[in-house]
Amino acid sequence: MARHQPHLLVPLPTGDDPVPVDQETRHHLEKALRFDTGLVTYTDGEGLVGEGVYEHGMVIRGDETLVPRPDLITVAVAPPHSNSRVRFVVEKLAELGVSQLVWLQAKHGQGRPPRSDKSRAWVRSALEQSRGAWLMEVHGLVPVPGLGEFGTPIFADPSGATVDELPAIDKPVLCIGPEGGFGRDEVPETAARLRLGATILRVETAAIAGAVLLRGSEMGPPPWHSTGKT
Amino acid sequence: MARHQPHLLVPLPTGDDPVPVDQETRHHLEKALRFDTGLVTYTDGEGLVGEGVYEHGMVIRGDETLVPRPDLITVAVAPPHSNSRVRFVVEKLAELGVSQLVWLQAKHGQGRPPRSDKSRAWVRSALEQSRGAWLMEVHGLVPVPGLGEFGTPIFADPSGATVDELPAIDKPVLCIGPEGGFGRDEVPETAARLRLGATILRVETAAIAGAVLLRGSEMGPPPWHSTGKT
Repeated sequence: MARHQPHLLVPLPTGDDPVPVDQETRHHLEKALRFDTGLVTYTDGEGLVGEGVYEHGMVIRGDETLVPRPDLITVAVAPPHSNSRVRFVVEKLAELGVSQLVWLQAKHGQGRPPRSDKSRAWVRSALEQSRGAWLMEVHGLVPVPGLGEFGTPIFADPSGATVDELPAIDKPVLCIGPEGGFGRDEVPETAARLRLGATILRVETAAIAGAVLLRGSEMGPPPWHSTGKT
Repeated sequence: MARHQPHLLVPLPTGDDPVPVDQETRHHLEKALRFDTGLVTYTDGEGLVGEGVYEHGMVIRGDETLVPRPDLITVAVAPPHSNSRVRFVVEKLAELGVSQLVWLQAKHGQGRPPRSDKSRAWVRSALEQSRGAWLMEVHGLVPVPGLGEFGTPIFADPSGATVDELPAIDKPVLCIGPEGGFGRDEVPETAARLRLGATILRVETAAIAGAVLLRGSEMGPPPWHSTGKT
């Protein structure tokens, strides 16, 4: 039934020697997917992608391409209070091709960022699942005044502009506050504000909706991977 | 810390007598939120919303408004194979104000729709959370040929049109296939196709991204509820 070739994140040193996958990936491929050998695609998470052959723990490298870094999209999110919702934020933003996730330290924040080993595993699995070429970076906690380092903050706000009304912004950092909202003095008065729609969204839903609106549907899939359709 | 007034789904018979909330809602309000009495908003899930007072299991009705039914957005989804992802589809589409969720019976589908009592509870909780006025309907399983009953099918497809290129469609039914894609003969050749972006998305992420793209960010929040900001 699975018609996708596996897509693997592997370190890609200079040269073309076969590269080993880690134990966990090997276990997943061979035990869970019963995939001992066959065609795969692979990436270093920094734009280099290739089509090769997997054989017993090794990737034999084939044709490789460098996928240009997509436009930088950064989403800053106050961690929701439940672990499953935190995981959802990480996984979905990575799947959607967001470049950077910044955990936002908000005055009324109720949750905490995930452990970094968990976070890395979720990002990796989303990259492999979505057949991406660029690994999402995760930063934080960062308070609102520290966001300037990542780009120009845009705050999700029901009274804000629609995405079409928003002026062009070079390195947008979409900021999603905690359930209770930002504190009164927390958001600079002159900051840009984006409306996410007609309903009040949970933190994780707002993060995803905001990423989708910023990202749009303009770009097609990169040419180097199969669509998995029959 | 909670600055939202509770928003409650209650049956609203003709007249203005106080209405009782069910045991579960009462338990949630009084035990979890320690909310014995106070201002609330409420809705019948069919557009009628009001601001009133909650007192020990009863809602004393106040000013009421009829919120017009928003443009019909229907999303048809092949159930993902894990229960948490099925729940996510229901909860997030309801939060986003999708009118109808149709579980799609696809040739290569791997999951099953949730039990209807669970589904109803998730929809309800999302409506209360998002302060909505219209309860999302859930239908299915429905095979592709049966979708015409709900409107005009648009299939999520990496080779499809962007949302801006899509012709205006009166009652769109966005169709999200299973992980392995639709079968070769399953999608009518003449059907409209929508591209959801540059990465391959999991079923639940595609459903949410598609709903956001169809819905846009045009509408502001309905005027009758607070934004919950400090």
